[in-house]
Amino acid sequence: MRASTGVEGLDEMLNGGLIPGRTYLVKGGPGSGKTILSMLFLVEGAKRGENCIYVTLEEPINEVKEDMKNVGVDIDSFDNIHMFDASPSGETLFGNSFFRNLELDIPGFKAALEAKIEELKPTRIVVDPITILELASKSEVEYRRDMMSLFNIFKVHKVTALLTSEKTGVSPEDFLVSGVIEYVEYEIRGRLIRGIRIRKMRGTAFDESIRPYRITSEGIKVFSEENIFE
Amino acid sequence: MRASTGVEGLDEMLNGGLIPGRTYLVKGGPGSGKTILSMLFLVEGAKRGENCIYVTLEEPINEVKEDMKNVGVDIDSFDNIHMFDASPSGETLFGNSFFRNLELDIPGFKAALEAKIEELKPTRIVVDPITILELASKSEVEYRRDMMSLFNIFKVHKVTALLTSEKTGVSPEDFLVSGVIEYVEYEIRGRLIRGIRIRKMRGTAFDESIRPYRITSEGIKVFSEENIFE
Amino acid sequence: MRASTGVEGLDEMLNGGLIPGRTYLVKGGPGSGKTILSMLFLVEGAKRGENCIYVTLEEPINEVKEDMKNVGVDIDSFDNIHMFDASPSGETLFGNSFFRNLELDIPGFKAALEAKIEELKPTRIVVDPITILELASKSEVEYRRDMMSLFNIFKVHKVTALLTSEKTGVSPEDFLVSGVIEYVEYEIRGRLIRGIRIRKMRGTAFDESIRPYRITSEGIKVFSEENIFE
Amino acid sequence: MRASTGVEGLDEMLNGGLIPGRTYLVKGGPGSGKTILSMLFLVEGAKRGENCIYVTLEEPINEVKEDMKNVGVDIDSFDNIHMFDASPSGETLFGNSFFRNLELDIPGFKAALEAKIEELKPTRIVVDPITILELASKSEVEYRRDMMSLFNIFKVHKVTALLTSEKTGVSPEDFLVSGVIEYVEYEIRGRLIRGIRIRKMRGTAFDESIRPYRITSEGIKVFSEENIFE
Amino acid sequence: MRASTGVEGLDEMLNGGLIPGRTYLVKGGPGSGKTILSMLFLVEGAKRGENCIYVTLEEPINEVKEDMKNVGVDIDSFDNIHMFDASPSGETLFGNSFFRNLELDIPGFKAALEAKIEELKPTRIVVDPITILELASKSEVEYRRDMMSLFNIFKVHKVTALLTSEKTGVSPEDFLVSGVIEYVEYEIRGRLIRGIRIRKMRGTAFDESIRPYRITSEGIKVFSEENIFE
Amino acid sequence: MRASTGVEGLDEMLNGGLIPGRTYLVKGGPGSGKTILSMLFLVEGAKRGENCIYVTLEEPINEVKEDMKNVGVDIDSFDNIHMFDASPSGETLFGNSFFRNLELDIPGFKAALEAKIEELKPTRIVVDPITILELASKSEVEYRRDMMSLFNIFKVHKVTALLTSEKTGVSPEDFLVSGVIEYVEYEIRGRLIRGIRIRKMRGTAFDESIRPYRITSEGIKVFSEENIFE
Repeated sequence: MRASTGVEGLDEMLNGGLIPGRTYLVKGGPGSGKTILSMLFLVEGAKRGENCIYVTLEEPINEVKEDMKNVGVDIDSFDNIHMFDASPSGETLFGNSFFRNLELDIPGFKAALEAKIEELKPTRIVVDPITILELASKSEVEYRRDMMSLFNIFKVHKVTALLTSEKTGVSPEDFLVSGVIEYVEYEIRGRLIRGIRIRKMRGTAFDESIRPYRITSEGIKVFSEENIFE
Repeated sequence: MRASTGVEGLDEMLNGGLIPGRTYLVKGGPGSGKTILSMLFLVEGAKRGENCIYVTLEEPINEVKEDMKNVGVDIDSFDNIHMFDASPSGETLFGNSFFRNLELDIPGFKAALEAKIEELKPTRIVVDPITILELASKSEVEYRRDMMSLFNIFKVHKVTALLTSEKTGVSPEDFLVSGVIEYVEYEIRGRLIRGIRIRKMRGTAFDESIRPYRITSEGIKVFSEENIFE
Repeated sequence: MRASTGVEGLDEMLNGGLIPGRTYLVKGGPGSGKTILSMLFLVEGAKRGENCIYVTLEEPINEVKEDMKNVGVDIDSFDNIHMFDASPSGETLFGNSFFRNLELDIPGFKAALEAKIEELKPTRIVVDPITILELASKSEVEYRRDMMSLFNIFKVHKVTALLTSEKTGVSPEDFLVSGVIEYVEYEIRGRLIRGIRIRKMRGTAFDESIRPYRITSEGIKVFSEENIFE
Repeated sequence: MRASTGVEGLDEMLNGGLIPGRTYLVKGGPGSGKTILSMLFLVEGAKRGENCIYVTLEEPINEVKEDMKNVGVDIDSFDNIHMFDASPSGETLFGNSFFRNLELDIPGFKAALEAKIEELKPTRIVVDPITILELASKSEVEYRRDMMSLFNIFKVHKVTALLTSEKTGVSPEDFLVSGVIEYVEYEIRGRLIRGIRIRKMRGTAFDESIRPYRITSEGIKVFSEENIFE
Repeated sequence: MRASTGVEGLDEMLNGGLIPGRTYLVKGGPGSGKTILSMLFLVEGAKRGENCIYVTLEEPINEVKEDMKNVGVDIDSFDNIHMFDASPSGETLFGNSFFRNLELDIPGFKAALEAKIEELKPTRIVVDPITILELASKSEVEYRRDMMSLFNIFKVHKVTALLTSEKTGVSPEDFLVSGVIEYVEYEIRGRLIRGIRIRKMRGTAFDESIRPYRITSEGIKVFSEENIFE
Repeated sequence: MRASTGVEGLDEMLNGGLIPGRTYLVKGGPGSGKTILSMLFLVEGAKRGENCIYVTLEEPINEVKEDMKNVGVDIDSFDNIHMFDASPSGETLFGNSFFRNLELDIPGFKAALEAKIEELKPTRIVVDPITILELASKSEVEYRRDMMSLFNIFKVHKVTALLTSEKTGVSPEDFLVSGVIEYVEYEIRGRLIRGIRIRKMRGTAFDESIRPYRITSEGIKVFSEENIFE
């Protein structure tokens, strides 16, 4: 059984979808559509009646909702998508405590998140983006340990997790997750050509080509039969 | 409803203009026209009778005004454009306090700015450039937190903000703002070819091509139908 | 006498297999197949009735087992493959002690591993991956010394060892081990082309070409007669 | 009214010359002719009967004078060009005090320079080069602040300033000054091709091409009608 | 009189061999053949009845001997080749003392080595590799000073020394030694092409071309008449 | 009047030679011939009956003399070339005191050198190489200040100085000296092509091309009429 990403063409590239209970990474530059993709993943779960958790560490929740309206999704119509603002402008206790003591509260963040998981019993979770978690780590070894232990929380509770990352190229998280979906862009004669590819996917065959995609008023459209260079 | 940038061709590239109440970034190298673009954005608001705030962290206000005269704009004729000099040569209390205690006063800068916003109730604000804010931050995590909290001030007061940045390539701010307008240049056989492009724009479709522009005695002219490589 | 890697085409590239009692490195990017290759190496030994040790420092053991099922191997059917979880999510004492005191416990890790070697008398051992060992070292000189002393443990107990590494390019480990097997990839017009090559192999002639490989439902297939660029 | 640079072809590239009362930067590699260009700028002012100040932070004054003789200029024949040696080999109090306490005396340098400006009331000033000012700064933020405050001294006293810099590529100073004149060089089949270009110029149109130049026994000759690549 | 390297084609490239009493460097990537070349240099001296010293700082002595058997040399048959294990796995006092106090014992290493030189009066010496000596140095200036003083020991005792280095490109040692022999490799369409060249040789003319070489069952064969690119 | 470099073709490239009383830099990679060129410069002065000083900071004096014999020069036949060994293996007080207290003795080095200059009244001086002076400096600002003050000693005593440097590319010294002579090399299809060029020369016209050179049994031969790329 696979967990659909909520994006048809991407499911095809993934040979059906993601493997439930594992952690995946969505990487991409500014404006590539990481938040939209991860919200569509939650919407797909919500439509099946499952509880979902979205944690923002950056963009305010209101703006995420506005932007989702532009791709045809009214987040407020899903009462099983639970959104938490852990950004510095967030008003939830959750966020405040994280940002109040930057150096100490990654454990606090994990504890708060685990408490929410135990309360809501979600099948899907998104953390968008993980950048600040790495920046707040004292060393790469500490960061890797904390991420592995966070993924273990997801694993123990059988949640499929999608994390977004602002990094390009190969980075430590790529090795720790079960799969990496990557937005790429090429500048050809002054025009940006955008594509999506699967960079890594444990436990399944997958489409290794870069496929074109478009963000439309109805979501993300991945052209899984087209080649970006043709 | 969109907020016009005051530059016709650029509004077309933006599919009408900027989304009110959000924060945007204008990036570009030395002499590309960041200050002129951001002042034109304020002039557009001022013409509609709205209050506007311009904060310089670098170029003296007199020189900004002189340079604007060269593009056909007499800033002094707008009494609803409020200019504040937060540069080290500034004489306003505002600026002096910021530079007197470099390490301590980013919170002070934000507090002073918020006080001005509450007093003047502007619809548009420019901070030109943000470079020194990053340089004065102790770490990227602190810088990101401070910027997100600054953007939140703009959001709460429903101000559309334009920040300028001297950085090229992808940088942390790009992920935090709602959109990025970027000046680019190519050197072709010893001549600089200049262009402008939208690098990111949340919540709207936009023109992804690089378009040529010119700074003339009447402002900035963006040739939104022309291609820089033709 | 050579030790077969459990991958037919790779044995041919190696002129028969690995030299017993020495330490080798498998390098590659995320998702290249390092864990699968190193597990197949152990399975080969297990089929010959030898004891084998697998130590994970990253991926949970359950996921390794799931992924191996996808390449047609049921690890649980081999009772002479002993798997130890030294990752932060590991429940064995072994792992906990290592991660409890990151700075102090590389000696502890080595001692625990040597105790297991003395108890189980394995002929083959895998440490997957070694990344965290380097990250936890205070300096390159300390790291090199610790690795050389770890390899000496393998040598004294006549174990053939395969270590995996997430690094690309030339790195310190390459000089310390007896051989380096490297996964490489090229991006050609938006498609990843994957290959495997022997980068170094002391004490034997070997095939110096890059050969294509595929991860299939029956393991890893190396096409030792084909050329990746033809 | 523009201030002529004293180099005919360069004035043409600048659309008449520099804007009085502002600060400009001349950048270039070793031996490109930064000192000669900046001295010619002062000679032009001196010929008009204006007082000029030259501050060297590197090359001894005697050698500057010798080198100027090779381009046909006898500096000693101008009694309104006031030369100050702030280099470590300088004998003037001015220089000694600067180098005696490297960490403390950038303010002292500015104070001494302002005293000279008040005494001599120059229209033109050259600081050649500014490299040591940046090296002696504790951070980029301190350096930017000190430079902005130095430029403000020039501005208050209505002096047109030319600073030389040994840096290539875009650097912080480029953003702070009103204009950047840059020597460039290309190596084509073992021969250096040298050119000059305007990289930035606020408040005026200018020639954006790279033009060839030559240092001759009569000064600097810029071929403002020729193209370096033809 | 020249000292033969023990590799015929290489002697031809060197115009007869090395100049006795000087120190040389052999550089190369993992698996290029640095240890084999340096041992062949000692074997050549041993065959002439001279005493030789080999010091390993990395590969265990047993493995060096095994690998030499693969190129047709039985090191144990030469009782005038004295091998010392200064690696962390070494059992000689010599090695233990070096690694026991990493920061203090480079002087101790030099003293121990000089004592051995005085006892054995060798004509040839190999230190393989010198990497750890640089890593254990507190600064480049300390490293250069220590290396120069080590070379002086060799000089005073009229020993011809060959050091191996894992560095590629130009590095500090290159300037300090009398000559540099370098293994190079090129990747051409997925195949490694290997060659050897003389990078520097004081006091003699030499062949400046890159020549192909092969490690065979009879040693190293340098094709001093062939060109790697033909 | 120019000071001949002692290398005919190079004098032609320099339009007659070096300007007396100034400081010049010779840059080049390992084995390019920096020491030979600087010694030939002294030999040229010695033949004219002038006193010369050579200070080595790296290669032992005996080896310099041996290497000069290979290019046809017997240094010992010139009793007006005074050689000082300031390397760590040097036996003169001069050298020992420098290396005994690395951090304190750059002033001591300058004082000792100035004493020798006052005693011997040389017209020419060589410091070969200056690398260790930079490495022993605490910062670039300190290094620049010390070098400028060293050059001032030469200037005051009217000595023409040639310093050698192991750096390639543009480095701080290039800006401080009156001229830069640079050895360059290109690798073309596995063969090193060597050339020499004038990178900077204040106060004179000069040949800007790269010219081929050869180190022969009679010195250095610069082919000032030939082009390296033809």
